[in-house]
Amino acid sequence: MASEVSAKDYQDPAPVPIFHVVELSQWSFYRALIAEFIATLLFLYVTVLTVIGYKSHVRDACGGLDHLGIAWAFGGMIFILAYCIADISYGHINPAVTFGSLLARKVSLIRAVMYMVVQCLGAIVGAGIVQAFQMGYYERNGGGANMISHGYSKGAGLGAEIIGTFVLVYTVFSATDPKREAKNSIAPIVYCNELKVLAPLSIGFAVFMVHLATIPITGTGINPARSFGAAVIYNKAEAWDDHWIFWVGPFIGATIAALYHQFVMSAGAA
Amino acid sequence: MASEVSAKDYQDPAPVPIFHVVELSQWSFYRALIAEFIATLLFLYVTVLTVIGYKSHVRDACGGLDHLGIAWAFGGMIFILAYCIADISYGHINPAVTFGSLLARKVSLIRAVMYMVVQCLGAIVGAGIVQAFQMGYYERNGGGANMISHGYSKGAGLGAEIIGTFVLVYTVFSATDPKREAKNSIAPIVYCNELKVLAPLSIGFAVFMVHLATIPITGTGINPARSFGAAVIYNKAEAWDDHWIFWVGPFIGATIAALYHQFVMSAGAA
Amino acid sequence: MASEVSAKDYQDPAPVPIFHVVELSQWSFYRALIAEFIATLLFLYVTVLTVIGYKSHVRDACGGLDHLGIAWAFGGMIFILAYCIADISYGHINPAVTFGSLLARKVSLIRAVMYMVVQCLGAIVGAGIVQAFQMGYYERNGGGANMISHGYSKGAGLGAEIIGTFVLVYTVFSATDPKREAKNSIAPIVYCNELKVLAPLSIGFAVFMVHLATIPITGTGINPARSFGAAVIYNKAEAWDDHWIFWVGPFIGATIAALYHQFVMSAGAA
Amino acid sequence: MASEVSAKDYQDPAPVPIFHVVELSQWSFYRALIAEFIATLLFLYVTVLTVIGYKSHVRDACGGLDHLGIAWAFGGMIFILAYCIADISYGHINPAVTFGSLLARKVSLIRAVMYMVVQCLGAIVGAGIVQAFQMGYYERNGGGANMISHGYSKGAGLGAEIIGTFVLVYTVFSATDPKREAKNSIAPIVYCNELKVLAPLSIGFAVFMVHLATIPITGTGINPARSFGAAVIYNKAEAWDDHWIFWVGPFIGATIAALYHQFVMSAGAA
Repeated sequence: MASEVSAKDYQDPAPVPIFHVVELSQWSFYRALIAEFIATLLFLYVTVLTVIGYKSHVRDACGGLDHLGIAWAFGGMIFILAYCIADISYGHINPAVTFGSLLARKVSLIRAVMYMVVQCLGAIVGAGIVQAFQMGYYERNGGGANMISHGYSKGAGLGAEIIGTFVLVYTVFSATDPKREAKNSIAPIVYCNELKVLAPLSIGFAVFMVHLATIPITGTGINPARSFGAAVIYNKAEAWDDHWIFWVGPFIGATIAALYHQFVMSAGAA
Repeated sequence: MASEVSAKDYQDPAPVPIFHVVELSQWSFYRALIAEFIATLLFLYVTVLTVIGYKSHVRDACGGLDHLGIAWAFGGMIFILAYCIADISYGHINPAVTFGSLLARKVSLIRAVMYMVVQCLGAIVGAGIVQAFQMGYYERNGGGANMISHGYSKGAGLGAEIIGTFVLVYTVFSATDPKREAKNSIAPIVYCNELKVLAPLSIGFAVFMVHLATIPITGTGINPARSFGAAVIYNKAEAWDDHWIFWVGPFIGATIAALYHQFVMSAGAA
Repeated sequence: MASEVSAKDYQDPAPVPIFHVVELSQWSFYRALIAEFIATLLFLYVTVLTVIGYKSHVRDACGGLDHLGIAWAFGGMIFILAYCIADISYGHINPAVTFGSLLARKVSLIRAVMYMVVQCLGAIVGAGIVQAFQMGYYERNGGGANMISHGYSKGAGLGAEIIGTFVLVYTVFSATDPKREAKNSIAPIVYCNELKVLAPLSIGFAVFMVHLATIPITGTGINPARSFGAAVIYNKAEAWDDHWIFWVGPFIGATIAALYHQFVMSAGAA
Repeated sequence: MASEVSAKDYQDPAPVPIFHVVELSQWSFYRALIAEFIATLLFLYVTVLTVIGYKSHVRDACGGLDHLGIAWAFGGMIFILAYCIADISYGHINPAVTFGSLLARKVSLIRAVMYMVVQCLGAIVGAGIVQAFQMGYYERNGGGANMISHGYSKGAGLGAEIIGTFVLVYTVFSATDPKREAKNSIAPIVYCNELKVLAPLSIGFAVFMVHLATIPITGTGINPARSFGAAVIYNKAEAWDDHWIFWVGPFIGATIAALYHQFVMSAGAA
């Protein structure tokens, strides 16, 4: 069939090699690492500052109201950061997204590992700047660290992280899928193709939505670098006790999303 | 006239056959069913969790404030889910949208019935996961089920569902109308054509808007699968008593929207 | 110069005749009237219902909080309605926008007058449906009618309406300006042209913004049909006393916007 | 290499001369000044009115809730204003953005200075209109002026302004970068190119995000004209004491963003 496709048809890009030594000699590889570092730093800076600021100003009487603003902070930052660095580093800003991209053979192993390292470093620095700005508020308000809320089980927290990360990574895969215009689609070709314009907005909204749903349960991680950076700076036992949940959950969710996208949604059979 | 149209002109696609047996042998048909099932599952999971979470945290003194966050949850999820599966299944995620599409001859009868079945199953599973996560909060907070609020009549509830679904289904039809660039339009051709890019965002906003308006009346259904899934899991008499309203209302609204779009807005006369 | 322009250059469309009798014989003219009627009806229905619903649920302790949700209702509805009927009627949904378009010679006098008539009728019916749904809440909560709030002068209210409508109508003109890609622009051609995609979203945001700013002063009109429809159904002296402000203000604002756009922003000199 | 590039490749535009006398004879230069003046006027008018309105209506018990609405007002206005005048003046509306553009050699020195002058004048007039509308509320509610909040150090305020302006100016540079489609990008070419459509929305969101994070610290400046206009009209010692922070901070932030974008993100090495 490949020989008959029209000029508009799309061939899946070849999988990226697991070990892709040549990229180590390219400036664009190191630029991508810088971009991921700075983006994750800014992500933690803005979001942890928002969490702290609301908690210090809002009175108990309306304690739940901050959730909408906090959810916007997380979702909106991912929108603008993914938008800004999409062409530099793909805009992961999240080890779970990087892990899913590795499984889908979109990035090499070395790139995946290095992305996760710089994402964690950026997150630590970003949370550290917030702490430096406001020692008192920071300590009293939990430092934006993820923990299982009172009244929820570890199982509920883990499940919330798995499904939440699935929503995010599945949206990432759908939004950046080069196959959207494939011919076996039943949908109106006429507009599917153009929908990629909204990719960073839909990814930001996925983060926004998951935060609305699961802030009451875990504060919402779905991003191990975000959870790790906040835990390192806050550094109290209650932040470390459940910390494994915010790595295991997102990685399981990303794995399921990668499998679902590759073997179910993108399967090529007619 | 058809013989003189330019390359840019648009011919309406032929109506889909009522019985379209050939699609039963296509993988893309079953993939669409899976996509609708998972999307409706995630829709209920995120939105019911948001409803429960807000209700358990927000104090009475600020009881009405959760409506904005809840409305965002419903609208935002439809935006990202419709965006993600537009090219897989058209992104209905709602039996009322499927019913309207059947009336407009955009999908076959068998596809319409199967979509509604998997949407309802997905909704049940999605609401069930929320219940499994938090037994106590779930039961105490109404489980996200739709009911007529105290002080409103059944007629008001039915009317709200009819008009709300009309707003949604009419937006769906307008946003995905292949005729937008038709020559008899009076509007500046120069930008109408490109507006399709915003289709999933405008559909999500339609859901957001209707929730802002009618959460105080019925909690807002405008999606029989959403109402059915929440009712099955909550399973109390007060959720079933008015349940017919959340099927009859949306189907009437979708019917009016299909008629309005096909016979008034899209009528071909000069 | 006109003889040397490239294929991409743009010529201003000829002004529409003041009396354009031929359109009276076209179905597309009557379809546009229906579209404006239904859109204004839905606009009032959703927004007045949101105003009433919030006022009846929100306790005094947090009385100002509803403004954000109400502002979203007005802005979001204009986004989706303008999106849906842009190619049918230009999506005015507002006599002030129609008046500005008449001054800019984009619509004929007969079309402008008929648009205003059906917009006002649609607004009355939309507000009337809300009243029918909930007699008690409606009467007690002011029916969404525009009035000068306690502590503000008539002059402040009039000024707020003038500037608010200027913001809206200027955004409408900018967003739909066919000249955006004109050669004398200093901005990067490379992306200006594509910005039209966001036209309905930016128009909706203009409405959202003005409501955030002026709900405390007048409830925000900037749309005489919206103010008129709510006043007719509410029909109390306090709604009629200042009603002239919600016609005079918007028409002055639209006039200034039309002059500013046509003679300053779009002036063709190099 | 330049001789072999395909038609789609992109050459950086030549830097704008520091002294560009010819533009002084062009109407488009003066039109850009008018556009910046009016846009900054409307920006201050809507945002200061929103700040005042919320503060006068919201009770103490829910004092922190206004932040989300206020953040929307600032971000949303930048979205619509940048959208409206992108092709007229590039839509700076902010001396820090103008300063960054000067450093990046995108505008001449004379244009930069004149932009800053008219932005400050527009801001004064915009804030003045708000004061004229509501003398009492204005004085009692701080007039929207930026100050370091109780409990924060000057260093924290300065740092917040630097990082906040970095986020904004970096987003502006990324969003309007003509190089996004450059060949050495590792990202899927297929959608990067089209992302420019979202430029004004992402810039507006950057403003929204920074306000969510830093309103509790300084009220958020990141725009010296906004801070200056509000201070001139409010004109109390407490507004002037820290005023230098709202010039020095944004200019440092813009400088870092310009350096980061030009020498790191846009560096041409393979």
